Amino acid sequence: MKISDRKTIRKYKATDVDKTLIHGLLGTASRAATMGNMQLYSVIETRSEEGKAALAPLHFNQPMVTGAPVVLTFVADFRRFTRWCDLSDANAGYDNLLSFLNAATDTLLFCQNFCTLAEEAGLGTCFLGTTVYNPKGVISALQLPMLTFPVATITVGWPNEDPMQPDRLDIETLIHEETYNDADDDTIRQIYAYKESLEENRNFVEINHKQNLAQVFTDCRYTRKDNEAMSKGLLEALHLQGFM
Amino acid sequence: MKISDRKTIRKYKATDVDKTLIHGLLGTASRAATMGNMQLYSVIETRSEEGKAALAPLHFNQPMVTGAPVVLTFVADFRRFTRWCDLSDANAGYDNLLSFLNAATDTLLFCQNFCTLAEEAGLGTCFLGTTVYNPKGVISALQLPMLTFPVATITVGWPNEDPMQPDRLDIETLIHEETYNDADDDTIRQIYAYKESLEENRNFVEINHKQNLAQVFTDCRYTRKDNEAMSKGLLEALHLQGFM
Repeated sequence: MKISDRKTIRKYKATDVDKTLIHGLLGTASRAATMGNMQLYSVIETRSEEGKAALAPLHFNQPMVTGAPVVLTFVADFRRFTRWCDLSDANAGYDNLLSFLNAATDTLLFCQNFCTLAEEAGLGTCFLGTTVYNPKGVISALQLPMLTFPVATITVGWPNEDPMQPDRLDIETLIHEETYNDADDDTIRQIYAYKESLEENRNFVEINHKQNLAQVFTDCRYTRKDNEAMSKGLLEALHLQGFM
Repeated sequence: MKISDRKTIRKYKATDVDKTLIHGLLGTASRAATMGNMQLYSVIETRSEEGKAALAPLHFNQPMVTGAPVVLTFVADFRRFTRWCDLSDANAGYDNLLSFLNAATDTLLFCQNFCTLAEEAGLGTCFLGTTVYNPKGVISALQLPMLTFPVATITVGWPNEDPMQPDRLDIETLIHEETYNDADDDTIRQIYAYKESLEENRNFVEINHKQNLAQVFTDCRYTRKDNEAMSKGLLEALHLQGFM
């Protein structure tokens, strides 16, 4: 699957995915840009039934977690580097928010590279954003120590479905020349008009008894209440892991 | 350039890079996974001499900024989506830390996809991590409004150098089976031994009058003092942009 044809795959064949293949793809993915060539990431590879069962509820029991042969949790990791500094009599100062963001950035670039390579190799992937919804649970399940933090989870397997490619916004509306172009109201409405017109989305509005698609997002899918509670948990987890 | 051959390119030919090419690559890159298909990002395309001159000091005057035909700043953007919600009488609750992290994640996946596609098309790229070192400066230069935040800058051009590919850590040391494997001290030393042995890095130690490579990182390149000051600036910028 090329990047232009990319789609999320949530259903996988029962066939295993060879460990050598996964590790090889991860190795090539590590060619992504990385801050000062520090490679501030780790990957936890979950293949056991017990491991997947422990992760599943933390991802709201989305069936991909137990249904995929391999679950990869991508972890921002300043611990390995800091331990090397400690062993070298060097005063490491990476227990702060900037360092978290630097490590998370390294990790996400590496993660996206892995996804591209996995899809090129014929594998299907699903990106679970839920990793940062309940980081304390993931930290506990994967025994993540200080100065590490889970930022993304990818389920991987051989595709057992071929869904339609989803819509995307017109790229021209996302590109700004020289400075940010704050669109007028009509343009904003126009940007999302196609999305609102889709049968599938009109159906979401109806079954949720909402007036429009935006309300499905704000009232059902990603609510203020949930976001604020999860932001609090995220901050607590950043403290817990030594990044604040 | 394939992912396996990837290297950072800092010197570019004077030849321009066609706008249609860049926008086409960005369009394809937008096939990356995105939270709830919200596409929480924008790109600011800087081509003017004045624009580059304004950005250059914010990136510590690294010569790529004024030397590249195109500078792309990748911006986490919950503003466009929130404005659509506001126009739809929907109560958007995306002015918080989780929403920032969600948007930053979307943005970085999209950004890495763009880099892969650009390199495949023969372009050279350089990732400037300095974007989050002084976000307030970037926000001001690019006139980024509330609920937007710069997370990455990529300089792009036709390569005018062919440097050696840098070293990477053995991927097996970054992969953990089932749970985080906190390596013992000897293993940690071993992980970084090859890096320490490199001529170039031994030279860094010498010219900086340090005892070892780790001290070059902690005392010269990424110091506690700088990280703590920049973490403060980062937090202030997150407040300023409405994400805290």
